[in-house]
Amino acid sequence: MKTSRLEAFSDGVIAIIITIMVLEFKIPEEGDLDALRSLIPAFLSYILSYIYIGIYWNNHHHMLHGTEKIDGGVMWANLHFLFWISLIPFVTGWAGENHFMPTPVGCYGLVLFMASIAYGLLQNRILTLNGEDSDLAKALGKNLKGKLSPLLYLVGIAASFFNVWISGAAYVTVA
Amino acid sequence: MKTSRLEAFSDGVIAIIITIMVLEFKIPEEGDLDALRSLIPAFLSYILSYIYIGIYWNNHHHMLHGTEKIDGGVMWANLHFLFWISLIPFVTGWAGENHFMPTPVGCYGLVLFMASIAYGLLQNRILTLNGEDSDLAKALGKNLKGKLSPLLYLVGIAASFFNVWISGAAYVTVA
Amino acid sequence: MKTSRLEAFSDGVIAIIITIMVLEFKIPEEGDLDALRSLIPAFLSYILSYIYIGIYWNNHHHMLHGTEKIDGGVMWANLHFLFWISLIPFVTGWAGENHFMPTPVGCYGLVLFMASIAYGLLQNRILTLNGEDSDLAKALGKNLKGKLSPLLYLVGIAASFFNVWISGAAYVTVA
Amino acid sequence: MKTSRLEAFSDGVIAIIITIMVLEFKIPEEGDLDALRSLIPAFLSYILSYIYIGIYWNNHHHMLHGTEKIDGGVMWANLHFLFWISLIPFVTGWAGENHFMPTPVGCYGLVLFMASIAYGLLQNRILTLNGEDSDLAKALGKNLKGKLSPLLYLVGIAASFFNVWISGAAYVTVA
Repeated sequence: MKTSRLEAFSDGVIAIIITIMVLEFKIPEEGDLDALRSLIPAFLSYILSYIYIGIYWNNHHHMLHGTEKIDGGVMWANLHFLFWISLIPFVTGWAGENHFMPTPVGCYGLVLFMASIAYGLLQNRILTLNGEDSDLAKALGKNLKGKLSPLLYLVGIAASFFNVWISGAAYVTVA
Repeated sequence: MKTSRLEAFSDGVIAIIITIMVLEFKIPEEGDLDALRSLIPAFLSYILSYIYIGIYWNNHHHMLHGTEKIDGGVMWANLHFLFWISLIPFVTGWAGENHFMPTPVGCYGLVLFMASIAYGLLQNRILTLNGEDSDLAKALGKNLKGKLSPLLYLVGIAASFFNVWISGAAYVTVA
Repeated sequence: MKTSRLEAFSDGVIAIIITIMVLEFKIPEEGDLDALRSLIPAFLSYILSYIYIGIYWNNHHHMLHGTEKIDGGVMWANLHFLFWISLIPFVTGWAGENHFMPTPVGCYGLVLFMASIAYGLLQNRILTLNGEDSDLAKALGKNLKGKLSPLLYLVGIAASFFNVWISGAAYVTVA
Repeated sequence: MKTSRLEAFSDGVIAIIITIMVLEFKIPEEGDLDALRSLIPAFLSYILSYIYIGIYWNNHHHMLHGTEKIDGGVMWANLHFLFWISLIPFVTGWAGENHFMPTPVGCYGLVLFMASIAYGLLQNRILTLNGEDSDLAKALGKNLKGKLSPLLYLVGIAASFFNVWISGAAYVTVA
């Protein structure tokens, strides 16, 4: 399998995810200003998720661009990463519609946490397969940031039981 | 990053947006002529939005076609533009379902206004990066039209508080 | 603009339309055999629409494959064709959910009729632009079939006021 | 028609199917832990379907990669295969929302069964057209597995009338 095909498929899935997210943004039955006000939480979570997926798309593309060899393991690690990303529209809609109640906010963090872990696994698999070359070096340079974000997600998930605003702050900080 | 990849990703997102818009067009529970009549506002707003996205797709493609260099700034300016475009299905459905009430009509104009601003920012960024060549000249030729449309959107948004038909006329004029 | 880009965009839109049609196929609240039985009309209309879009995809691809030149007129004729195709999921869902009541069945026929007219316009525009060559000859060979189908759709739309089964038969015959 | 185009179209459809599946995963109205618990069946069926589509994408890609010639028959066999795959989001949502009641679980198995039959037909058509070369040999190597899975689906469908857990076990085993 060629890298270009994996890249095209992933790009397609990410383009669809970033776009269908707006479908979870339910049309209010009323058309007045109250309805508009009630949309604010959904809008905020939409913006945050949009930025996250934009960042992932960018990073994912740069990583695959520097990749020469892929195998079945990389393909499944990639599908695993896309699986968690594909849940973002759902948790975004849930958190937004319930005006940031603890459970959806915690789930939002959990999905982001799992996506970052899955991204790390995919990165490791690609590095192992492609050896210690210049791309590895670049990747390692970003490693500290990569290790910090899962920690911040965990803080966000834990905080969701006490105060969802701390969770929100943690998620925004990672982005 | 190559221009072709940014173009392919944007094309994918625009193709999805223009297509999922029909999903915001809710299936009526009844199957009689009254149900058909109640669909007219949704249908009109669908046509208008479809034409808008068609125009943007066309312009966006011509602009990127003449672009040689892109950077991270262009990529984020592009994602910012796609963000506002991605909200069009939502405001289209909202305005259509509420039979053109002031708030959704104003929001519709706001999203179109922000999309035109975002498109301008993207264009500026590309022009700065690629220098004053023939593409720049072509782009400047369209500049007056580009500067008029945000104004008309503002008129449309303001008018939505008094008479939504003036707003509609303003939006149709821009298209 | 290159033919390949128009083809890629159209393919993307058609792929999305054929796929999101299943989203109009509402999940029943119950999980018993009655619920399954009530799905039959929706399933039948889904099959018919799927076949229609499959045929259009095939024809559209063959037509563009033989096309050398395109211009703005072809692009808008193509967007016009995709517009009517994009309404197929909506009328499919409406006709299926209302167990083939006259109005949705008539609208279904109307959308198919408009799509066939739009396809004819697109074909004419491409033929005019590309001149009388071998591709034109091939296209003319299919012309009779192309002229019969709009007639059959009209029969189907007219029949929907009296007997939806005649409409159904007309639509199936065209496919 | 070139293989690359059929591949690109199929990839597009599969990418959309695997992604829109999350839209059948309904956002609960509440935001508490009970709502989260009630999501577990939907989540389990989502995971299973995601793995199935991932496997099909992988196999489909490998099969087309080794294909040199295609014709109209292959194209329609491919559309037939995509048809059954396109129903997976629907049966996944139905089985998940009804907490694995017999009818949806049976339908889920039926769709998987038909997809495996359609895949077999597509494979046969491609093998007949491309002759007995090395790709054929590879395909035959997988034949036993290919013949076993429809049987297991039938077991799963039959078991759904008595015990949906046996059905689930059968489906998981095939994956």
